[in-house]
Amino acid sequence: MTQRRKRHRSEGGQARAGGHVLIYGWHSALAVLQNPKRRVERLLATPNALRRLGELGMTDLPEPAPAGAIDRLAGPTAVHQGIALLADPLPETDISDLADARLVVVLDQVTDPHNVGAILRSAAAFSADALVLTERHSPADSAVLAKAASGALEHVPLVRVKNLARALDRLGEMGFTRLGLDSAHAEPIEGGGVPKKLALVLGAEGSGLRRLTREKCDRLVRLDVPGPIPSLNVSNAAAVALYAVTRPRP
Amino acid sequence: MTQRRKRHRSEGGQARAGGHVLIYGWHSALAVLQNPKRRVERLLATPNALRRLGELGMTDLPEPAPAGAIDRLAGPTAVHQGIALLADPLPETDISDLADARLVVVLDQVTDPHNVGAILRSAAAFSADALVLTERHSPADSAVLAKAASGALEHVPLVRVKNLARALDRLGEMGFTRLGLDSAHAEPIEGGGVPKKLALVLGAEGSGLRRLTREKCDRLVRLDVPGPIPSLNVSNAAAVALYAVTRPRP
Repeated sequence: MTQRRKRHRSEGGQARAGGHVLIYGWHSALAVLQNPKRRVERLLATPNALRRLGELGMTDLPEPAPAGAIDRLAGPTAVHQGIALLADPLPETDISDLADARLVVVLDQVTDPHNVGAILRSAAAFSADALVLTERHSPADSAVLAKAASGALEHVPLVRVKNLARALDRLGEMGFTRLGLDSAHAEPIEGGGVPKKLALVLGAEGSGLRRLTREKCDRLVRLDVPGPIPSLNVSNAAAVALYAVTRPRP
Repeated sequence: MTQRRKRHRSEGGQARAGGHVLIYGWHSALAVLQNPKRRVERLLATPNALRRLGELGMTDLPEPAPAGAIDRLAGPTAVHQGIALLADPLPETDISDLADARLVVVLDQVTDPHNVGAILRSAAAFSADALVLTERHSPADSAVLAKAASGALEHVPLVRVKNLARALDRLGEMGFTRLGLDSAHAEPIEGGGVPKKLALVLGAEGSGLRRLTREKCDRLVRLDVPGPIPSLNVSNAAAVALYAVTRPRP
């Protein structure tokens, strides 16, 4: 595998010509354009989107895209909001790069790109340092993920690992307390202190954490929900858990 | 407008033959089948889905659906998980029915059916009594909403109102404290006590609460998020806010 393909995979992506990743939607595209680490290969935007970029002080903007060109680049079902671009993928982040991190989110086979994107956005909102996920059984559609992340892809690196159990071992060696969210047989998330270095581990809806993932966690905790539907959408569970573990304890 | 059409609208729906609503997906369809208030007109399911329903003790099940029939009923992009049905709409709930309610969620022009469905699911998880939304500028696709709600449509009534400001007045008269989520110029959501009767009011992403909606709130509060992306997806914000207002204060 070439370095280019490897780097591309780190954004969860579909192979595209030249190894570029597709990004569309106002917030996601703007964040790419504002990220000095990104090289943009091609930018297509409506006159209105270009005007807004100009108002933000951006220069070197292209001519407005011909009619239909943004639809063709972004795909027929994409809500692109008048802007789409192809950019070089971000540099890859490895699990060993997280030695100085304080808060990471770990996903065990969460596959829906809308959910993973929303979790990435929440991770950025709560100042998490990285999102760790498996190379397999992860979202295939990088553009949908990027759109749902609303620019968070430029702030929180994705760390793709071959083997999640080994990654959790590595995080443990680096001093992370691994907190697994598990609805059965677990203490409330509010109990216990907030560790200095925390890895919050979430599983897929329905199946939850795999057995080996659970065994690698230092503590299993649950979110208490009192109502007739006893579980949250996984991105909502991630947001509530991030809120619960990051807010100051009384 | 006929009563049937009115009732149908209460589920946010597309008009269908005979005024029935389309529901697909395992959790959503199962919740309908388990709801004694629902009359199911037509049920299409794969042999596997029928076997699971049988294991749950359901009787009077139809023959397995012919190949392609579920796709045709649910629509080409629906993730129906092998089950789709047409059912009578639920009885309509009016704002005046909420006199004994303790917690309601109010949405100001949130239009994405995935988000509204996920919020309905969180509302059910946190034991909210109703979800109030405007007739206009609300999701048009009831089936997508129902799927994202994962069965919560059977537990938490949708209350559609013509005029949100008047609905907030009514909630105030009924003793609700109206708490508006607003990122600018507002106190943290953790401050202050938890009122006995609470209406949590959320606006659309980007635009937020409309001016008149803000003015009808008793208090405006914000969710503190420390990171580089300063806002959450609206369904994630709703989940965190519901968690914050329902958990016991120290």
